Amino acid sequence: MAPAGRPGAKKGILERLESGEVVIGDGSFLITLEKRGYVKAGLWTPEAVIEHPDAVRQLHMEFLRAGSNVMQTFTFSASEDNMESKWEDVNAAACDLAREVAGKGDALVAGGICQTSIYKYHKDETRIKKLFRQQLEVFAWKKVDFLIAEYFEHVEEAVWAVETLIASGKPVAATMCIGPEGDLHGVPPGECAVRLVKAGASIIGVNCHFDPTISLQTVKLMKEALEAARLKAHLMSQPLAYHTPDCNKQGFIDLPEFPFGLEPRVATRWDIQKYAREAYNLGVRYIGGCCGFEPYHIRAIAEELAPERGFLPPASEKHGSWGSGLDMHTKPWVRARARKEYWENLRIASGRPYNPSMSKPDGWGVTKGTAELMQQKEATTEQQLKELFEKQKFKSQ
Amino acid sequence: MAPAGRPGAKKGILERLESGEVVIGDGSFLITLEKRGYVKAGLWTPEAVIEHPDAVRQLHMEFLRAGSNVMQTFTFSASEDNMESKWEDVNAAACDLAREVAGKGDALVAGGICQTSIYKYHKDETRIKKLFRQQLEVFAWKKVDFLIAEYFEHVEEAVWAVETLIASGKPVAATMCIGPEGDLHGVPPGECAVRLVKAGASIIGVNCHFDPTISLQTVKLMKEALEAARLKAHLMSQPLAYHTPDCNKQGFIDLPEFPFGLEPRVATRWDIQKYAREAYNLGVRYIGGCCGFEPYHIRAIAEELAPERGFLPPASEKHGSWGSGLDMHTKPWVRARARKEYWENLRIASGRPYNPSMSKPDGWGVTKGTAELMQQKEATTEQQLKELFEKQKFKSQ
Amino acid sequence: MAPAGRPGAKKGILERLESGEVVIGDGSFLITLEKRGYVKAGLWTPEAVIEHPDAVRQLHMEFLRAGSNVMQTFTFSASEDNMESKWEDVNAAACDLAREVAGKGDALVAGGICQTSIYKYHKDETRIKKLFRQQLEVFAWKKVDFLIAEYFEHVEEAVWAVETLIASGKPVAATMCIGPEGDLHGVPPGECAVRLVKAGASIIGVNCHFDPTISLQTVKLMKEALEAARLKAHLMSQPLAYHTPDCNKQGFIDLPEFPFGLEPRVATRWDIQKYAREAYNLGVRYIGGCCGFEPYHIRAIAEELAPERGFLPPASEKHGSWGSGLDMHTKPWVRARARKEYWENLRIASGRPYNPSMSKPDGWGVTKGTAELMQQKEATTEQQLKELFEKQKFKSQ
Amino acid sequence: MAPAGRPGAKKGILERLESGEVVIGDGSFLITLEKRGYVKAGLWTPEAVIEHPDAVRQLHMEFLRAGSNVMQTFTFSASEDNMESKWEDVNAAACDLAREVAGKGDALVAGGICQTSIYKYHKDETRIKKLFRQQLEVFAWKKVDFLIAEYFEHVEEAVWAVETLIASGKPVAATMCIGPEGDLHGVPPGECAVRLVKAGASIIGVNCHFDPTISLQTVKLMKEALEAARLKAHLMSQPLAYHTPDCNKQGFIDLPEFPFGLEPRVATRWDIQKYAREAYNLGVRYIGGCCGFEPYHIRAIAEELAPERGFLPPASEKHGSWGSGLDMHTKPWVRARARKEYWENLRIASGRPYNPSMSKPDGWGVTKGTAELMQQKEATTEQQLKELFEKQKFKSQ
Repeated sequence: MAPAGRPGAKKGILERLESGEVVIGDGSFLITLEKRGYVKAGLWTPEAVIEHPDAVRQLHMEFLRAGSNVMQTFTFSASEDNMESKWEDVNAAACDLAREVAGKGDALVAGGICQTSIYKYHKDETRIKKLFRQQLEVFAWKKVDFLIAEYFEHVEEAVWAVETLIASGKPVAATMCIGPEGDLHGVPPGECAVRLVKAGASIIGVNCHFDPTISLQTVKLMKEALEAARLKAHLMSQPLAYHTPDCNKQGFIDLPEFPFGLEPRVATRWDIQKYAREAYNLGVRYIGGCCGFEPYHIRAIAEELAPERGFLPPASEKHGSWGSGLDMHTKPWVRARARKEYWENLRIASGRPYNPSMSKPDGWGVTKGTAELMQQKEATTEQQLKELFEKQKFKSQ
Repeated sequence: MAPAGRPGAKKGILERLESGEVVIGDGSFLITLEKRGYVKAGLWTPEAVIEHPDAVRQLHMEFLRAGSNVMQTFTFSASEDNMESKWEDVNAAACDLAREVAGKGDALVAGGICQTSIYKYHKDETRIKKLFRQQLEVFAWKKVDFLIAEYFEHVEEAVWAVETLIASGKPVAATMCIGPEGDLHGVPPGECAVRLVKAGASIIGVNCHFDPTISLQTVKLMKEALEAARLKAHLMSQPLAYHTPDCNKQGFIDLPEFPFGLEPRVATRWDIQKYAREAYNLGVRYIGGCCGFEPYHIRAIAEELAPERGFLPPASEKHGSWGSGLDMHTKPWVRARARKEYWENLRIASGRPYNPSMSKPDGWGVTKGTAELMQQKEATTEQQLKELFEKQKFKSQ
Repeated sequence: MAPAGRPGAKKGILERLESGEVVIGDGSFLITLEKRGYVKAGLWTPEAVIEHPDAVRQLHMEFLRAGSNVMQTFTFSASEDNMESKWEDVNAAACDLAREVAGKGDALVAGGICQTSIYKYHKDETRIKKLFRQQLEVFAWKKVDFLIAEYFEHVEEAVWAVETLIASGKPVAATMCIGPEGDLHGVPPGECAVRLVKAGASIIGVNCHFDPTISLQTVKLMKEALEAARLKAHLMSQPLAYHTPDCNKQGFIDLPEFPFGLEPRVATRWDIQKYAREAYNLGVRYIGGCCGFEPYHIRAIAEELAPERGFLPPASEKHGSWGSGLDMHTKPWVRARARKEYWENLRIASGRPYNPSMSKPDGWGVTKGTAELMQQKEATTEQQLKELFEKQKFKSQ
Repeated sequence: MAPAGRPGAKKGILERLESGEVVIGDGSFLITLEKRGYVKAGLWTPEAVIEHPDAVRQLHMEFLRAGSNVMQTFTFSASEDNMESKWEDVNAAACDLAREVAGKGDALVAGGICQTSIYKYHKDETRIKKLFRQQLEVFAWKKVDFLIAEYFEHVEEAVWAVETLIASGKPVAATMCIGPEGDLHGVPPGECAVRLVKAGASIIGVNCHFDPTISLQTVKLMKEALEAARLKAHLMSQPLAYHTPDCNKQGFIDLPEFPFGLEPRVATRWDIQKYAREAYNLGVRYIGGCCGFEPYHIRAIAEELAPERGFLPPASEKHGSWGSGLDMHTKPWVRARARKEYWENLRIASGRPYNPSMSKPDGWGVTKGTAELMQQKEATTEQQLKELFEKQKFKSQ
């Protein structure tokens, strides 16, 4: 591995991408740490960086070991908007943890911001940009290597984020959590890409909300629009590790299984190798994952692209390519699984014969910002919950 | 949490079980650490305890935080048989790690041994008991609180293990990886239980190989046989966290998805709450998990049985019971998921419409020890693999 | 085909079976004619024989053409018990239709009776035997070739039927609609078989309620018990053409899909060829079908066993064996389907990704004769229905 | 029912549609008669009209009884092209049968022609129109009430058919077997509709190849294009009774299950009631079915639209609306199925847990007319089949 330590000593993100290198992103923090016991579903805030830094450090280490070249600061939704006064300490601690682990390998630190909860009903550009600027100040102080504006459902807000971040002089990547149908105001992916590049983003793409297949369809539309507009940008994809053939434009949040019943949708390592190959063939060179991406999924990207990159990640010392580690098993039929053709072609079973293979997303007819979708300021009352449950019952028939 | 630190200061395992306490076991190490990048599938040996102690310590911590009262030493298959000279260091380090974490909460340390790879073709009682005794010596030196003989497919070998372990004077638990059809020589679960108790085990049950439903059916047969024989023992279950309605008597190893395509079978936290309740109702008081059990699954046991136990585990500070943490979500249909009835009744989808819901286990007609099932001493040759692949193709038609 | 016309001119049923011939039964009347518009679901009575004789004659013709050697009179549940005074005309007309069509080929006429609706709550042997005797009188008058007592859930009533029918001096076949768990009073299949043979049946087996696989498991238990008791009888199977891996002991009636949502369970012709082969290998020589068996399913039996029998049925002039008729198709990938390996190994899709593959049978905890299960004498009232719907809602959670 | 007998005494097809009446088409002949033993798959020619007229008459009767207002002559692909000299007798006999049955109720006779097998590689307008004209001559001689040009994959050929048929002065309906992606040369449905109406068709729509949902999507596109072009035509739909969510633009022929493994895809009567309602709401007034539509499916259309039409079809004497006939069943849980909510919301199971819910269509990369797609003049040789099987094996991986 590369010598480590001083920020700036490594090749920068744009330098890498411009030289044609594959940059491997990292994976899931919120969902993974929820399962490990350190993040609360619903709020999805990253106070674990101060409460349980060992747990966060360990996850960074696992991604580094799996091949990640980017340690994203675990700062998702960590703004004044969601975390009150605690937000600044959280962001600073997250930067330190990311830098510490990045220093142990060939990885850069990326400061990450995401959409605000206020945009949906208050499109207050000044206020929202102020929130972004506050976060940026911490990233600047902590000398992150570049910046990522991710998880935007509306291109307008994403543009505001990019406009804010480029003031730092650092490279900016921007990814939206949209599918081929476009953003939640109906702006097609291609137009989103064009606007983001014009706003100053050097790297654009998608993250979260959809599975690898759908996400690459979206990136393809972005790529085509940029080419048509004669704009240049690097492509990036960080999809879910969940199969979501049944999502509508709002993505996996609306699936009835979100967030506590997504298990049967989790991608295998072989699904991810296929994704890595398809992303590469499409021209994507910043290839990572979002919710559901465990370290072994990131390793699968690094293994699939090892021929192009010329090396395997550290964690491959504990992994036989395409199941080859099974060739010593006592049972001959398990040994016979030690090959690519087997795993590539296997249609794995769910073990759940009483369950369907696809779900109808919820939605109740409201797909855009309405009063019903405002951020709750207080916990829903018993009475309100009862009304919701009745509505749910009715809608699901 | 209880004050910690000195071995012996806590209530012992039998003291707890005899007073009617629920003891919560821990979960998956091999499979979980394989996904985190520290264990190699195929060999499944625990050298991570010396190579990457931070990763192992972190996983112990997560289980402790989730509610585990037992830290099993990560010594699975760590005998001279599989690890050559390294085995002793591995076992000692595993004891130290388990003890270190157990000291931070109300948990005991259990030294674990499992079936040997030589039993299948050399039923050499002397040699096998020697292997067990070697492991026991380390456990005695490291002062583990009690002993577990687990993952036995043949009751004869399990009895040898128990006979060896009771010499230590420590309490012995014994679990077999069998289903309702019994051990691989056809000995029914009830008879297995009787023999194990007669050999000296104080706690008996099953672990691994089958899902919670099937595992509890097996424990029920054990319980009935013990009652019929007027023998007394505490009951224990540590099943898979995978749905396996389609296994034959050999368990999940024979499923075509083992070990790299089991994702869609992973249990939800709600499945595990149901398991915990059913185990409790059956009279099982040592309730844990095996392969596939992540920290959130263990937490689900602790939450389901919180009314009986009177307290929640530390990790519940990050978990709203039955999805209650969703009651602040902006989308009303996500808020409507904040209740028990929703998650209990949801039939979650696999997101894989081109895949089946059940698989035919492999097996090729050989279900007992034959020459074909001997431990490979060298990696399978190219030619041998070709022959296996042809055989596989033929059998799968 | 054999010359036709005079009753008695053909080889009798026992003569055929004793010489080792395969006798092919016919298929579904009630369910098939319900779909064609001539039978009402719920009542399931055969008044179509007098109301729409052309429709019934045509179905007999199709089965004859498909290879059936038996025309069962369409007299299912046509007794005084269910049809009041109309029953006698219906039975007589049914015999005439069956005889007319049998005369056009190598088929015998079998008079059929089934369980009564009164047995469940009035076990009045005298009254029930009188109902059977009334039906038998018509069969004797119309000179049917042999008799079938079929669709019995309780062996006691089946024995009464056999005792009544043998008085005629004609050969008697007796089939129960049970699975491997036995009759609804818990009498195992083997004991049922023994009692029926002792009562005088020459041919015994199962019909209806379960799929071919489960039905043959039941016949196997019957066969083994007869051998153990040193009794001799010919074996017969007439299963459903529906896949029912999820039935409990009460069979497909309790599946939530019965009777208007069974479509996705319908067997293919290839499933039926497999059934015919397995039945033959088990020693069954009277091989037919029950609900769901369309003419092409019967043809599949005749085609599978053509090598043993030495001839194909008339309808095979319109059928290429194993899809061979596709070899002229314009699309090469459709031509490639013209072979046995293709259809034997294809795992056909349901086209229903939002649906499960198995169902939980209804049952509500009442599996034997209770007040709730009495024959309704009047249509259920609105109020009663409401109560049932509430109960249904509760039970399905 | 209306008095019958003399052709012309009934209201004509356009008179009905212009007055807003719902016209119910008929259902499946080829596939249904294949299952009854009278049509050979692969060739799919209707010589049964002369070989087994009783079987064809009976099927017409069942559709009439189920509510059909149109008896389509069973002349599918019965041209000189496919049937040599026999074609003329077949067409004449088909007309007589259709007329005979139409005379027994309120039904018209429609003469039907379909695409030729020569268009794909010889786009010889003169020759193709000659084939159509020959068929038309028989229809004119037999005085059919109107004409249907159906099952066209290419709008160019469909236009030739319409141009030929309108010369007769009879009303012409034209339906294409296409989905929302358009014809096999890529002409969108809307443009197809415009061209067909401009060529003279009074009724346009789709038939075959896709399920009801997809077919109505296609009709909607046709409707919108006609409105945009200010053209007027009546809308017609005759989809498959198979669920085909997984078809590509070529429809169900390319599904691996075609034609001998489609059973699990068959629609229930409730699916068809939903279809009838949606078709009606879309403005379709000629509502029927194609392959897979059995008499009970047609009855479901008539029952769903009984409120609008004011009457039920004859076959409803044997059918309780929405399962109401079950209200006398002995089992309370079967009685509880006697209502609309139950059947509307039930997600019926396939009974096939080892099978997937969707399939990948075949296609091998050739989707348009290539040499590989030419009509075979001789049966494929053994050698050619071997090559195909190898290709199939390769493609299916």
